[in-house]
Amino acid sequence: MRKNYLLTPGPTPIPPQVAEVMSRPIIHHRTPQFQAILKEAVVGLKYVFQTSEDVFILTSSGTGAMEAAVINLLSPGDTTLVVQGGKFGERWTELCKAYGINTEVIDVEWGKAVSPQEIEKRLKANPKIKAVLITLCETSTGVTVDVEAIGKIVKVTDAVLVVDAISGLGAIDLKTDAWNVDVCVSGSQKGLMLPPGLAFISVSKKAWDKVAESKCPKYYFSFKAAKKAADSTDTPFTPAITLVIALNEALKMMRQDGLENIFLRHKKMADATRAAMKGLGLELFAPTAASDVVTSVKVPQGIDGEKLVKTMRDTYGVTIAGGQAELKGKVFRFAHMGFIEEFDIIAGISCLEKVLAQMGYKFSLGAGVKAAEEVFNV
Amino acid sequence: MRKNYLLTPGPTPIPPQVAEVMSRPIIHHRTPQFQAILKEAVVGLKYVFQTSEDVFILTSSGTGAMEAAVINLLSPGDTTLVVQGGKFGERWTELCKAYGINTEVIDVEWGKAVSPQEIEKRLKANPKIKAVLITLCETSTGVTVDVEAIGKIVKVTDAVLVVDAISGLGAIDLKTDAWNVDVCVSGSQKGLMLPPGLAFISVSKKAWDKVAESKCPKYYFSFKAAKKAADSTDTPFTPAITLVIALNEALKMMRQDGLENIFLRHKKMADATRAAMKGLGLELFAPTAASDVVTSVKVPQGIDGEKLVKTMRDTYGVTIAGGQAELKGKVFRFAHMGFIEEFDIIAGISCLEKVLAQMGYKFSLGAGVKAAEEVFNV
Repeated sequence: MRKNYLLTPGPTPIPPQVAEVMSRPIIHHRTPQFQAILKEAVVGLKYVFQTSEDVFILTSSGTGAMEAAVINLLSPGDTTLVVQGGKFGERWTELCKAYGINTEVIDVEWGKAVSPQEIEKRLKANPKIKAVLITLCETSTGVTVDVEAIGKIVKVTDAVLVVDAISGLGAIDLKTDAWNVDVCVSGSQKGLMLPPGLAFISVSKKAWDKVAESKCPKYYFSFKAAKKAADSTDTPFTPAITLVIALNEALKMMRQDGLENIFLRHKKMADATRAAMKGLGLELFAPTAASDVVTSVKVPQGIDGEKLVKTMRDTYGVTIAGGQAELKGKVFRFAHMGFIEEFDIIAGISCLEKVLAQMGYKFSLGAGVKAAEEVFNV
Repeated sequence: MRKNYLLTPGPTPIPPQVAEVMSRPIIHHRTPQFQAILKEAVVGLKYVFQTSEDVFILTSSGTGAMEAAVINLLSPGDTTLVVQGGKFGERWTELCKAYGINTEVIDVEWGKAVSPQEIEKRLKANPKIKAVLITLCETSTGVTVDVEAIGKIVKVTDAVLVVDAISGLGAIDLKTDAWNVDVCVSGSQKGLMLPPGLAFISVSKKAWDKVAESKCPKYYFSFKAAKKAADSTDTPFTPAITLVIALNEALKMMRQDGLENIFLRHKKMADATRAAMKGLGLELFAPTAASDVVTSVKVPQGIDGEKLVKTMRDTYGVTIAGGQAELKGKVFRFAHMGFIEEFDIIAGISCLEKVLAQMGYKFSLGAGVKAAEEVFNV
């Protein structure tokens, strides 16, 4: 007998009522039956995005929607400002490069958040910058940025603010309209509690002006095609029907809970996880800008970080994530995002303690769980 | 109480054992557990594609994979030869246009198949043609083309043969390697008995030479990125995990049945459906090149074609497809593809008879079902 616990920053666990609808007989997408679901899902997405602007559903992973943002807003030869402080920030640069778009890069040390003032300085120095591309939660490092402050700065320029909120949306606060986010990109397998396969993207009026000027080639990811189809409650191409039906169920749950409560739950889980790591004598990788969706922790000296993750997963059924790219083996990432609650965190920390103890790390057994409980029980 | 029957050319019904795996707890994609599934699924896909070349899994609808074919093989200013005889042939032209690729178009009358000799003539007249873009089953008209004959012609030229086999693969014969298909594109929601959301694409050695020269911008749909990831049993971006697991189940079923038996089943269902239409005094839209996956039928005079489809679906739970684009209201399309068998066809024809009778069409009640049974019971 083995029970599995998924504590990774995407995919995140699927609620049973969402999983259930995916096993129902499929329906055709060009029917009033599906259109009613699509319509309701878009209303739900606007609630989660905190926007009254257009939100489109794309059948792709989140990267597809990042590409959609770049190719619909920009033209070859344009200049963007990219904040890079991890694997996903780098993806913005790679995407721009693939389309002949110049990038000014703010290279933030991994584990640190960008200073909004640095963005302001760069925008003033180069008024040609057409878009600022940032990452809400840099999953590779566990860092979150101050989108609200950045939004105020970008708002008064000609540039649009594009936020990769694949990780974070629906788990931590992101007020698309109020914070002046022009294009917000998200994916299904994180805060939205679905399998991967769908991406979502919002487009502000300021962004639509850029779309009108954009000369990058596009077809499958065209905003104009998405808009035209959405106007008659349709998608331009066959959508991932099952995932859209699941999306609608997940959004119903989220509307019932209320965003405020969801954000509080994530905050509490993050605080408890951080307290637990401290209780175990472990050091956070991003102490000053830690996100509430995933906690990055430095692997202590003498411990094999890859083996730690592998043993937790393959021997005990608890899947957390290891480090990516330059952080491989140096950190582990303990996620608390989506359909996760207090006792999942306790279980995950307990398993971490078990394997750390087996690997010879010195600490007082139970210290992590105790510290977490102290946060959960105030 | 209402039972639903889905007889549309995509999505097609999901087998219960495939539906079931989609409701299981999700697993992470960068784990040995998922890699084992991905590896097995690719082996299964190669069996269905009848190829020993590379086959990649993309998270997108079929159109995304069509775009992938165009942007990975070609460069702006290149010339392609497109066979257009319906909505999906036109999509090849639109895609090329979006990327600044010139198209020579063979405009085939809707309901007719292209003559391979016409393709030969065009290729001889213009040796600059770099790719021939065709459609295995033009779902909008119900027509299938002679891929084998076209493959022989394209093989001896510098051009590559690209086949949109979204509709048809895994239901009718398409020998990717033996018939010299360089790039074969397919989707999940047709012969492969899955929900939409995945696309598949094969790439021959001749095609890889074109990939090396291609200058179209690309990122999410890059073959090189797909190949690099596939070499370590991975995907370049988060795949639609649930659908890949479902794919593996569907492919197990297909390998167990065997392609020959699957093709025979489709042929029989198509013959029975065509016989039924004749029995009802209805005229086929594509009598000379009818595909074995969907039968297009002319709506008889005095009958409202859209109302016919709507009544079957909304009053009796049997979903067939109406006409698209210029065929709207003029044809209906009765599909027999994927997880469909004899008695589904009988049920569908019986419902068609019921609604035709109600709408005042004159025929001998039971004549369609009788004609179908005569085919099924030889």
